[in-house]
Amino acid sequence: MPASERALIARIRARARSSRNLVTGLGDDCAVLRVQAGYELLVTTDFSLEGVHFRRNWHSPEVVGHRCLTRGLSDIAAMGGEPLAVFLSLALPAKLPQRWVDRFFDGLLALARATSVPLAGGDTAQSPDGVLADIVVVGSIPRGQAILRSGARPGDFLYVTGELGAGSAALDRMLRTRRKVRESEYPRHFHPTPRLAVGEYLRKHKLAASMIDLSDGLSTDLSHICEESQVGAQLDADFVPRARIDKSQKLVDLRFALHGGDDYELLFTARPGKKIPARIAGVAVTKIGRITRDRGMTLLESGRASRLNPQGWEHFRG
Amino acid sequence: MPASERALIARIRARARSSRNLVTGLGDDCAVLRVQAGYELLVTTDFSLEGVHFRRNWHSPEVVGHRCLTRGLSDIAAMGGEPLAVFLSLALPAKLPQRWVDRFFDGLLALARATSVPLAGGDTAQSPDGVLADIVVVGSIPRGQAILRSGARPGDFLYVTGELGAGSAALDRMLRTRRKVRESEYPRHFHPTPRLAVGEYLRKHKLAASMIDLSDGLSTDLSHICEESQVGAQLDADFVPRARIDKSQKLVDLRFALHGGDDYELLFTARPGKKIPARIAGVAVTKIGRITRDRGMTLLESGRASRLNPQGWEHFRG
Repeated sequence: MPASERALIARIRARARSSRNLVTGLGDDCAVLRVQAGYELLVTTDFSLEGVHFRRNWHSPEVVGHRCLTRGLSDIAAMGGEPLAVFLSLALPAKLPQRWVDRFFDGLLALARATSVPLAGGDTAQSPDGVLADIVVVGSIPRGQAILRSGARPGDFLYVTGELGAGSAALDRMLRTRRKVRESEYPRHFHPTPRLAVGEYLRKHKLAASMIDLSDGLSTDLSHICEESQVGAQLDADFVPRARIDKSQKLVDLRFALHGGDDYELLFTARPGKKIPARIAGVAVTKIGRITRDRGMTLLESGRASRLNPQGWEHFRG
Repeated sequence: MPASERALIARIRARARSSRNLVTGLGDDCAVLRVQAGYELLVTTDFSLEGVHFRRNWHSPEVVGHRCLTRGLSDIAAMGGEPLAVFLSLALPAKLPQRWVDRFFDGLLALARATSVPLAGGDTAQSPDGVLADIVVVGSIPRGQAILRSGARPGDFLYVTGELGAGSAALDRMLRTRRKVRESEYPRHFHPTPRLAVGEYLRKHKLAASMIDLSDGLSTDLSHICEESQVGAQLDADFVPRARIDKSQKLVDLRFALHGGDDYELLFTARPGKKIPARIAGVAVTKIGRITRDRGMTLLESGRASRLNPQGWEHFRG
């Protein structure tokens, strides 16, 4: 193990925190975790790769760390679970300034503290090219209560949290202009909040029948629910909540809200009888359509129906 | 998500297996795992990066897949645990032949089957450069029975499984000659077996006081035990079991056995009263030294004592 790697591990250990569920954390072959009786375990892994998920000239180290952990926590939220511990595999290029790494951990650990989840282990390596991070989040959920993608039934209503489209609109603008945008104009792109409290509320009150987080974009993630539940969906474009962006705070173009990824909001379905609050844990919840027996997805726009295909926002970039 | 990535996920799903502890595997935001009452959870993550941990012209795809999973399983073995499920984050360069990926999974899944552990999830991405894999293994162990690095006490004897040095000797020869060596001449480099059965035996019979797997090399991994246990160690070079390598089947040079990494054998300590079998689960177990109250590590060679410093085999390469 090179000295730089040992130094990195030492720094991680110094900043790691313990918790009541963490028996042994950093400094052994494995972390040892305690899982409460009657609970099941959730595990999710997500890459954050330089040049693919972020660019060092567009995203500050704190933002990269924050978004890296958000990816994992958002998956736990989408099951209705609680995060137990975080593991980070981190490979760094030889010439990366020390300051970058410290600031990356500042961003990641601030979110870890805010969500009360300890950094419990991981791996370090020298990267052949660019910063490579893989975040692993382990969570827990009362037995049998995980909200799956496969739980939707015809007649369910379709809901989404927050506002959509800012994640991809920011990226689109940076790709077009080749310049960083202001973080304050696209806060949800730079500092997406995983919707843990909303996911837990929906699970505890047995409100959601199926759920997924919006990482690939509404049309794609909805298609995952349809596929796993063997149903179709009808989406009402007029009701899809669009983010406000830019200095002007104008509504984002519909295509970003429909197809753009990286919003980390929750998409869920609920049986028709369920009363869904308009806000949960301070986050707006909007009814945007329903689940149908007929397979395939339909988009209603000002009363006109068209076929909705799952696609990434890259597909319509000029 | 690009079509190539969807295709990769579809292939992984087709080849993934279920198990009684896996409630929901691939195809949701998280995998859902069941942990038996009275058990604790083990989690470990390990990178396998092209150009760092393997080279495509030296290591066949099957070997890369096999070694990738071995890294994770070996950490579970080093705690005395049983693997429950495997997660793989895999980023592939755009031009990688399909056949390479299939053969990578052949190697990884053959070992997964042999150790009865299902591939339960992960992430996929396009890699900016080279094959990037991060393996996550989740295991379980009866509560309080994990064999930690911190359990060594002065007076403990020091043991190692198998024979050491082949892992780094193969790499050293390939780096010097810039040519692949025959897999049959260095089987432990190309097909290291994680010592799961040995680890479990030691735990069930309460034989080991502390344990680590040899991934960084004997001198470095022993220093980890010393550090975590706040003890020192005396190593008898004449007793360190050296691997036979090459066509000639000659014993590997001592420095590879002392400092070379990637052997994935187990290093453990046992209280003086414990009877340690000469073979466990078909694997030789050799007494190679003892734990001392005095900090620091000492090497005995033909009766002469010298200071032993933790170092990687790279340090003495010419």
